Amino acid sequence: MKASPQRLAVGIDFGGTGVKMGLVDETGVIRGRFDFPTAAAGTRQAWMDQVQFGLDRFRRNGCLPIGIGVGVPGFTDFKRGFIYNLTNVPGWNSVYLARMLTKRFGLPAFVENDVNAMAIGECAYGAGRGHRHAVFATLGTGVGGGVVIDGKLYRGAYSMAGEIGHIAIRMNGHKTPEGQGGLETYIGNRQIVSRTVRALRAGRRSLIRALVKNDLGLVTPKIIARAATRNDPLALEIFDFVADCLATAFASITYLLQPEVIIVGGGVAQSGRVLFDPLRRHLRERLNQYFAKRIKVIPAKLGERAGMTGCAVLVFQSL
Amino acid sequence: MKASPQRLAVGIDFGGTGVKMGLVDETGVIRGRFDFPTAAAGTRQAWMDQVQFGLDRFRRNGCLPIGIGVGVPGFTDFKRGFIYNLTNVPGWNSVYLARMLTKRFGLPAFVENDVNAMAIGECAYGAGRGHRHAVFATLGTGVGGGVVIDGKLYRGAYSMAGEIGHIAIRMNGHKTPEGQGGLETYIGNRQIVSRTVRALRAGRRSLIRALVKNDLGLVTPKIIARAATRNDPLALEIFDFVADCLATAFASITYLLQPEVIIVGGGVAQSGRVLFDPLRRHLRERLNQYFAKRIKVIPAKLGERAGMTGCAVLVFQSL
Repeated sequence: MKASPQRLAVGIDFGGTGVKMGLVDETGVIRGRFDFPTAAAGTRQAWMDQVQFGLDRFRRNGCLPIGIGVGVPGFTDFKRGFIYNLTNVPGWNSVYLARMLTKRFGLPAFVENDVNAMAIGECAYGAGRGHRHAVFATLGTGVGGGVVIDGKLYRGAYSMAGEIGHIAIRMNGHKTPEGQGGLETYIGNRQIVSRTVRALRAGRRSLIRALVKNDLGLVTPKIIARAATRNDPLALEIFDFVADCLATAFASITYLLQPEVIIVGGGVAQSGRVLFDPLRRHLRERLNQYFAKRIKVIPAKLGERAGMTGCAVLVFQSL
Repeated sequence: MKASPQRLAVGIDFGGTGVKMGLVDETGVIRGRFDFPTAAAGTRQAWMDQVQFGLDRFRRNGCLPIGIGVGVPGFTDFKRGFIYNLTNVPGWNSVYLARMLTKRFGLPAFVENDVNAMAIGECAYGAGRGHRHAVFATLGTGVGGGVVIDGKLYRGAYSMAGEIGHIAIRMNGHKTPEGQGGLETYIGNRQIVSRTVRALRAGRRSLIRALVKNDLGLVTPKIIARAATRNDPLALEIFDFVADCLATAFASITYLLQPEVIIVGGGVAQSGRVLFDPLRRHLRERLNQYFAKRIKVIPAKLGERAGMTGCAVLVFQSL
């Protein structure tokens, strides 16, 4: 019998809306939890005070973590524990967060991009368990990603790898500051909704209209998924397009990296078969037999726990 | 002072036309050489006899290699030293080549895809020297590639990674057995030539006509490059298109992997600035500032030696 794991780490999922702190053990179980709204910690000082509060609570229960991992929504330099800047959270430009945490709490600390943290969480404890090479994609307002090689996060030369959302699927497509024809400019939540609303405004009949009681401002990917589940032709068409865009990027990823598995998380991924059936079919069509029969595409498993547990993995793997 | 390196390895670059055998030392210097035409070794037996001949010659000079590495034009399984099949070389389906070599010559042997071997050769001894993470692309009839991570070849889960030529640059582009819109369906040598010839047939004036004395069957990428060097508008347009297709794929690679450097080899890459100037410009336009200012795109250095020396690296790194 294996002895129960002794090491614990604090994983902090620092989101634009809320901050989730978890006390995580080496099997990925969350033994303690403390959350606070991002808005309630408007300054770095206030943020650190909240973290102090959570840590004290964990410690009062007799739990002594060996380190702290933080996942943040923006560009980071893992090696230096540094935040370049955060999307949607002001006041966090050029911050040596790891150093700040270590100084105040006397614990080793690590800082990683939030989606990278989710990727390593899913690989260690979720859908990617048991796989050596995996790619993680998360579908939301934007499309994020993370690359896991040999069970470890692959960060690239300057700690920024895994930006799946910017993979070009159309050479002459939408222009943005990130380039041209990037995946997320087609299948970000807003893009999915506006594609649908355009079709409805153009007169397409669809169950979606009834589901939002004719208020097109209420259309969401979730609503479209619900209509697709009930075989609404427009909704199915929208999901087929989303799936094919994803498959185009996934084919490129598969030819380049040949992971064992691509894990898909985030809101739209919760649509289930409505997304995954056409996604797998299109991906097969976009690969030759050698690659097609070996790649698996599966939904993420950990939901909102992926980030916290992933941050803990970073601590365990680093110490 | 460092002692002169003692280890030697045989690197065999098994091409569709010729087979190049090199006796390579650990600094990448080729100390002995034996080549034979692929057609002269029509059976596996005859091929092995030729290799025996080369090995005997190396040994007669007192050189004792520690192992043999072979790069072959097709799908391989490095772990098993296995060839699935070779493009353009019949008689080599499902061959345990490493085992055959070891049995006959009493030396450890390794089998790798030829472009992967070139990639690791360029990284160890050529343009990628000193870089940890690099991606190699070779432009020819097809477009091949290899991924080097932490100074080692990255093979993916099933030994097939690095197929840059099949990265999709146009979601709704050319359909092939490899998928849709793959890079090499736009910039393979034949595609470059036929794009040019189409423009000439459509009446475009160009220096190219004079260079081939009006025989459009003589147009090659090299001729087009020569015209581009002399500022021929059509030729410059063609190279701009090739560069932009490459930049589209390189942008996807950079966002996903963030290597320090992308190394470009093969015939078309020898065109120099005519290719690299627009390639770097388009790549910058297709990346955000964080990625654009960090990625380097440079020409390969080793030419026809990349394969042989790369095969030797595989031996050195494995033993």
